[in-house]
Amino acid sequence: MSDLLEFGKTVLLAQPFSNLIGAELTAMEEGNAEIVLLVRDELKQQHGFVHGGVISYLADNCLTYAGGSVLGDSVTAEFKINFVRPALGQKLIARSTVLSLGKRQAVCECKVTAVKENKETLVAVAQGTITKLD
Amino acid sequence: MSDLLEFGKTVLLAQPFSNLIGAELTAMEEGNAEIVLLVRDELKQQHGFVHGGVISYLADNCLTYAGGSVLGDSVTAEFKINFVRPALGQKLIARSTVLSLGKRQAVCECKVTAVKENKETLVAVAQGTITKLD
Amino acid sequence: MSDLLEFGKTVLLAQPFSNLIGAELTAMEEGNAEIVLLVRDELKQQHGFVHGGVISYLADNCLTYAGGSVLGDSVTAEFKINFVRPALGQKLIARSTVLSLGKRQAVCECKVTAVKENKETLVAVAQGTITKLD
Amino acid sequence: MSDLLEFGKTVLLAQPFSNLIGAELTAMEEGNAEIVLLVRDELKQQHGFVHGGVISYLADNCLTYAGGSVLGDSVTAEFKINFVRPALGQKLIARSTVLSLGKRQAVCECKVTAVKENKETLVAVAQGTITKLD
Repeated sequence: MSDLLEFGKTVLLAQPFSNLIGAELTAMEEGNAEIVLLVRDELKQQHGFVHGGVISYLADNCLTYAGGSVLGDSVTAEFKINFVRPALGQKLIARSTVLSLGKRQAVCECKVTAVKENKETLVAVAQGTITKLD
Repeated sequence: MSDLLEFGKTVLLAQPFSNLIGAELTAMEEGNAEIVLLVRDELKQQHGFVHGGVISYLADNCLTYAGGSVLGDSVTAEFKINFVRPALGQKLIARSTVLSLGKRQAVCECKVTAVKENKETLVAVAQGTITKLD
Repeated sequence: MSDLLEFGKTVLLAQPFSNLIGAELTAMEEGNAEIVLLVRDELKQQHGFVHGGVISYLADNCLTYAGGSVLGDSVTAEFKINFVRPALGQKLIARSTVLSLGKRQAVCECKVTAVKENKETLVAVAQGTITKLD
Repeated sequence: MSDLLEFGKTVLLAQPFSNLIGAELTAMEEGNAEIVLLVRDELKQQHGFVHGGVISYLADNCLTYAGGSVLGDSVTAEFKINFVRPALGQKLIARSTVLSLGKRQAVCECKVTAVKENKETLVAVAQGTITKLD
């Protein structure tokens, strides 16, 4: 495991909310990050889909990890998310990439997919700004 | 309690993820909604602030309730959120308002504040589109 | 006229594109700005409405003026806009307000209305981040 | 020239504002569109960069063309744009792609680059929703 991924995993474990959700950082390298989440009933809304708040959490966090991979310790300043399909399946995968890197900020994109019986479907796309902590 | 608020509370209780988070719908009337969340350690990130994913959940859900108050059963199609201050305190309050209502969609805004020793501070602002379910 | 408004008008006149569009800064005070644009045919799209690009320009620029009123020389880092009604009428008015002010950035909102026979209708809402130039 | 590109060019020519700006549709195929704009002084702001409103126009319009390539006659419902570099150079190129297609809407992304002495630099990224006209 790379130092960057090991560092990222340590940070994620230090986030009580990420533990409550059950997210796992599965990749982190310069300019990219991937977070996987196994779907369970308590992550759903009233129609049986994964709650939009869970998907927002994944996008927010994965954007920060991609930005953090090039900026160091950083936070999400803002992001925008489009939900494009109801999220159904056994697990969700968020993948984020740095689109542009400045001195203090990185603009990143994130795609969230749902995996159902080995078929992966896009459920949300996000774009946002990650800011380096002073 | 109004019928609308009672209906809204029933829907929120039917969302397993909202129960996991611990959100409470405290107001719902035509064009407005308010959700309150008591802060506890498992909602935080590694620096002791409430996790951005929790704030995103609140904005997402509160936007849907404001939109749903005029559209009926509906979902968040997309939203954008700016995090303006670290979220510290005993509780968070999300308040959402319909800015414009169309036939199938409502555009809504949401402000999220953190209450610390009775002082309320703005921590995030969001804007998004709520779409009526067919 | 206040010094701030006079300064703002000087900056707008120094923007060739704002002259091409024909925008006028009608108010600028700490935390707020207003830009007015008289509608003419060359600002329209193929259906006779004002082009979305014109409305985006207005929102972008008005957000910068509101942010600039408290930050000094600054630029729009990012914004999001929802078009809520087709823009028809004799003039457009953009009004922007600072929602939150940090050291280097301000988060602002903007509402754009169209005035037709003295009736003002909301046509777009925007939210964005203004960043102080170093 | 494909029928789709020819149709797209006809629509762009029917937009007075696109003529005022001077935009040219250079590609349109199912799920993709490209718009090119030659930079001239009247498209700039006070620091000599292309005005953010011009870049917003390009993103907005190119998103609509990508969405329209699969939806037919349609409009931009909303979009979000991050400006990542000052826009300097001889021309701007906007390229947009459909990320997800629904019955009435397409979610699309757009990248805007500036070409200076044959070097292409990313200046803005956008994401938005295109809605089919009824």
